[in-house]
Amino acid sequence: MNQGKFIVIEGLEGAGKSSAISVLRSELEAAGIDSIENTREPGGTALAEKLRALVKEEQEGEILQDRSELLLIYAARIQLLETVIKPALESGSWVIGDRHDLSSQAYQGGGRQIDKHIMSSLKEIALGDFKPDLTLYLDLDPRLGLERARGRGELDRIEKMDISFFDRTRERYLELANSDSSIVIIDASQDMESVQADIRHAVQAWLAAQ
Amino acid sequence: MNQGKFIVIEGLEGAGKSSAISVLRSELEAAGIDSIENTREPGGTALAEKLRALVKEEQEGEILQDRSELLLIYAARIQLLETVIKPALESGSWVIGDRHDLSSQAYQGGGRQIDKHIMSSLKEIALGDFKPDLTLYLDLDPRLGLERARGRGELDRIEKMDISFFDRTRERYLELANSDSSIVIIDASQDMESVQADIRHAVQAWLAAQ
Repeated sequence: MNQGKFIVIEGLEGAGKSSAISVLRSELEAAGIDSIENTREPGGTALAEKLRALVKEEQEGEILQDRSELLLIYAARIQLLETVIKPALESGSWVIGDRHDLSSQAYQGGGRQIDKHIMSSLKEIALGDFKPDLTLYLDLDPRLGLERARGRGELDRIEKMDISFFDRTRERYLELANSDSSIVIIDASQDMESVQADIRHAVQAWLAAQ
Repeated sequence: MNQGKFIVIEGLEGAGKSSAISVLRSELEAAGIDSIENTREPGGTALAEKLRALVKEEQEGEILQDRSELLLIYAARIQLLETVIKPALESGSWVIGDRHDLSSQAYQGGGRQIDKHIMSSLKEIALGDFKPDLTLYLDLDPRLGLERARGRGELDRIEKMDISFFDRTRERYLELANSDSSIVIIDASQDMESVQADIRHAVQAWLAAQ
């Protein structure tokens, strides 16, 4: 049985990740790939979901330090990678990830401005040389994304950050996407049909090149 | 107001840390130090105690990866250091720590044999150049310590480890204690009165040198 592939959808709040995941899944199924697992980060295992809750919630009377947040997210990533993603890929399943390491690089490295040396140390400790086969980054002005996200209801601790946080996050996303050929940038400011068409074309082109 | 000092008690399960903390506290009080806070690691803040529980408990159907455990312990340490220990020291209080970074070096670095480069990266990320002013390491053969700890009741996930784990942990404790003049080794295999006398003498000698 062939080794499965790991494809990740990335982007700011309101960029349309859920819809992109559906389109991606249907493209993969149309290409005859019938064993596909979905993951989300941070989360996706019992322990990782507990860590997700600790990161998302406001801590009563205690400020979550940026470096603590980073370590909790990486602990969750290690659990997901070792107990879910790697075993799935080894068994031949494909995995669609709703966020993965690029989110940490963008949000914690870019948005929170955590030192690049700390970011690369943690990535090395958690992932070694593991990386997604393909990443689709849905690029969008955070003002538009947050407007869409706010339409969906209450904002969590991270979504409540200042707009400059999201500007820095987007900037880091673009910087990393432009320097890595396994990351495809999708213009998520277009109407939904055009975004979906771009995703389908990107996936088809990538599948054809395998 | 003078800056407070941070004194840490370290050692394997059953080495007598609780009793040592009492002796240390009474020596400090006898020396006229009246503002003393106690901490324990991992733990000591609301969030850090939640992380302690995640590390100590068995996770149903999910193996806690060694590197995840390490990141959770360091996240807890950052929370305790930034929100409790540093503010206390800055306000002039002294702090007595029931474990601190040396435990991670010994248990995770020695016992679990996590790569030394990972250990030093995490220490640097979490602590920078912060370190205790004095550490008393209660040295004991783990066979004797575990016998005492078992006498106290049920063992947690870490206390259930194989004896070779504790032998490696003790070895790393001794290696680090022997290379750092701020760590005093106390022979905890002696009868309780002799251990307490050694602790009192060590603290008095250290106070006299300040």
